[in-house]
Amino acid sequence: MKITSAKVIDLRIPTSDNLLGSDPFHTEPDYSSAVLHLETDSGLRGVSVVFTIGAGTDWICHGVEDLCQLVVGSDLEEFTKSPITLYKRLIDHHQLRWLHDGVFRMACGAVLNAMWDLWAKSEKKPLWKLLTDLEPEFVVDCIDWRNIKDALTPEEALEILNKAKSNKAQREQDMAEIGPKAYCTAGWLGLTNNQIKATIDKLQADGFDAFKLKVGQDLESDVERIKAMREHIGPDIDLMVDANQFWGVNEAKEHIQHYLPYGLKWIEEPIARDDVLGYVELSETFKDASFKMACGEQGASPVIFKQLLKSDAIHYCQIDAVRVAGVNDVMAIILMAAKFGKPVCPHGGGIALCNMIQHYGMWDQIAVSGHSDTQLVEYIDFLQEAVEDPVEMKNGHYATPTTPGWGLEFHQEFLEDHTFPTGKIWKNRPAEKCGAKFESVRKLN
Amino acid sequence: MKITSAKVIDLRIPTSDNLLGSDPFHTEPDYSSAVLHLETDSGLRGVSVVFTIGAGTDWICHGVEDLCQLVVGSDLEEFTKSPITLYKRLIDHHQLRWLHDGVFRMACGAVLNAMWDLWAKSEKKPLWKLLTDLEPEFVVDCIDWRNIKDALTPEEALEILNKAKSNKAQREQDMAEIGPKAYCTAGWLGLTNNQIKATIDKLQADGFDAFKLKVGQDLESDVERIKAMREHIGPDIDLMVDANQFWGVNEAKEHIQHYLPYGLKWIEEPIARDDVLGYVELSETFKDASFKMACGEQGASPVIFKQLLKSDAIHYCQIDAVRVAGVNDVMAIILMAAKFGKPVCPHGGGIALCNMIQHYGMWDQIAVSGHSDTQLVEYIDFLQEAVEDPVEMKNGHYATPTTPGWGLEFHQEFLEDHTFPTGKIWKNRPAEKCGAKFESVRKLN
Repeated sequence: MKITSAKVIDLRIPTSDNLLGSDPFHTEPDYSSAVLHLETDSGLRGVSVVFTIGAGTDWICHGVEDLCQLVVGSDLEEFTKSPITLYKRLIDHHQLRWLHDGVFRMACGAVLNAMWDLWAKSEKKPLWKLLTDLEPEFVVDCIDWRNIKDALTPEEALEILNKAKSNKAQREQDMAEIGPKAYCTAGWLGLTNNQIKATIDKLQADGFDAFKLKVGQDLESDVERIKAMREHIGPDIDLMVDANQFWGVNEAKEHIQHYLPYGLKWIEEPIARDDVLGYVELSETFKDASFKMACGEQGASPVIFKQLLKSDAIHYCQIDAVRVAGVNDVMAIILMAAKFGKPVCPHGGGIALCNMIQHYGMWDQIAVSGHSDTQLVEYIDFLQEAVEDPVEMKNGHYATPTTPGWGLEFHQEFLEDHTFPTGKIWKNRPAEKCGAKFESVRKLN
Repeated sequence: MKITSAKVIDLRIPTSDNLLGSDPFHTEPDYSSAVLHLETDSGLRGVSVVFTIGAGTDWICHGVEDLCQLVVGSDLEEFTKSPITLYKRLIDHHQLRWLHDGVFRMACGAVLNAMWDLWAKSEKKPLWKLLTDLEPEFVVDCIDWRNIKDALTPEEALEILNKAKSNKAQREQDMAEIGPKAYCTAGWLGLTNNQIKATIDKLQADGFDAFKLKVGQDLESDVERIKAMREHIGPDIDLMVDANQFWGVNEAKEHIQHYLPYGLKWIEEPIARDDVLGYVELSETFKDASFKMACGEQGASPVIFKQLLKSDAIHYCQIDAVRVAGVNDVMAIILMAAKFGKPVCPHGGGIALCNMIQHYGMWDQIAVSGHSDTQLVEYIDFLQEAVEDPVEMKNGHYATPTTPGWGLEFHQEFLEDHTFPTGKIWKNRPAEKCGAKFESVRKLN
């Protein structure tokens, strides 16, 4: 099967109109994706997305288009024989690697994830099933070991995978219909306490029993909200908070110590995404608390995750599906989390991120950690109307996905209407509400 | 003075033809820059560059063009009144910050550095003189303190700057003609021992007495080369080595322990650019050695530098002029280095990087650390024919720069000939030697 052409679509939804997904830093996000379509001579299409929050999607699109030169014309079989070869051709490209992580690594991830999608579709398997069926030796060969062997050796990875393999048939049967346990953000910053309580009541009726609140406003109102939610749900329900990197290390300590009485499960992104030593300090400061530190949705590389995991800086490993270089990087991170006993609790939401992370949750819980005792996979019901195969939830869990590949097919009309800047949603929108000029930055500091 | 328009030029030099600047990772670099010209109604032009090594320059250009929407139409006086305001409009842009560091932060730096250039030109001062003339309080207000106050408080920064200020007149007089002490890379990977010795002899005749060798090939030949150079220069001359991130932590230890007998001054980039805990481990392992760890040319943010400096992970702070978000970020990093007693030894070479870092060396040695006892500023004579004001060297030191601004004006003909892909150097070049397809990656691992 030959890759015959690539198309990259700048897809943007004007979610800023109703402040969907806003937080202290990202005040008016337009949920967006660089959507990659790799066409083949077989009729199958490889699809991937890189989620962004509006302006900047074109930066990713530019990069993905450039990288696609390295796959168009190649055979899928070259990739399936040795995924690490394409990974290195991208990530270690002797000129492009100068661009560092961020846009470059995300663009590499787009290409790799579309190839993995094609592979899974060619085998008529959902992504998680393709991954769980790989031999442990093959998984180890998919990983770039250069910078992580001091935390996890290939031999240790093999041991983890082989141990899970011995119970894999049973685990796959356990998860044949009901997939990973999920949690929801109920407490968006814009909502009143009564609105949040009503949201929680509805989610509880649907079977959810773990909820997250956004914090990072003034201390008093944050604490008041946490207290009100804890009183509403009682002492036994999981409650987490998320500060979206708003604080420095010292401010984080000052805020978090006031959260101690409320039996929280985790504090998410209290500080900068790459402040490993800051996380170490927070984890030591609050070592006797009910909660532990969580981060990863903006963890830019396996090297950052390596440090966070091996030093006990964080406890909950919140991989994102599209921040690092695709399946290959995520395999490395999930295996490191397994070695250090950290629950993999992927970051969801955005556009179609939940459609992707359900597969990683499945792979982790069947073929790596091999259990479902401690993990929570984020679920947010945003924009599921955009895709042909929305995620399904059953009693607070993901229903096990069955569509071949990632399940990232968008409705054609949705794609056309939301293509930036030519789709009908955008072409008549005032210029100041489009792109980088859309700069109504909430006053910071 | 109003910014009336912006032009971004994709400038590439086919340096891969003679392997100029190659290392184990970057095997065939085409030294390149995204060159920004901000035009004004005064006739002055603000210039900045983002250095890259070929493919990927267009990624940076795309981003810089997007960001320029946020400055075209603004007044220089808005910027000079409060540089942090523009900094935050860029770096904390509520949609763009999702793009993380790398391409995004480098593009922000391009815009900021061009504004600083304009400011210095409007005052008819070289950049270093503009910076040294700023009041300590003003410098403190240029810095984004959100994520670094646990390492350096604004009050501590003020104290450092005020202490240097008390001796500033004397220091400025000391450096009125002879600027920062320099060092050179003499041992490029492609050269034979005899070629390297001849290079060193020539550099010594020109007054240099500190030299760097590239390592990262096989252990035996690396050690043989180090030994030969040490024998050639004798025991009292500074000798450093640079591995360009080629090793993992354990491989670095294995290699470096064989370097112990040769009285090296520093080991540069033995491991990944953001592996803070890896550097901590190496520094502890080799705490009794003659050498200390050095890195920073790919340090992607002040948060990474904060960790490297406060934990004694590195000793030599190798800032790059165009990797982080311009003067504002570099100010923060140089002040943190001063607090932790780490010599600022900037990364030079590339295209016109030396033209920029000489200003940072001056500012550090006059107005921050306030001495020249321990710093070495890299000097590489590459491509100085491209600019109107090449750096001048005097007896192993930078001659104090006097041109207003950064001194980044390129010869017009050089710019036109090397514009990618339309300039005459590129338009007839075979496609496989241009851009991302230029993928002759040396086999890695």
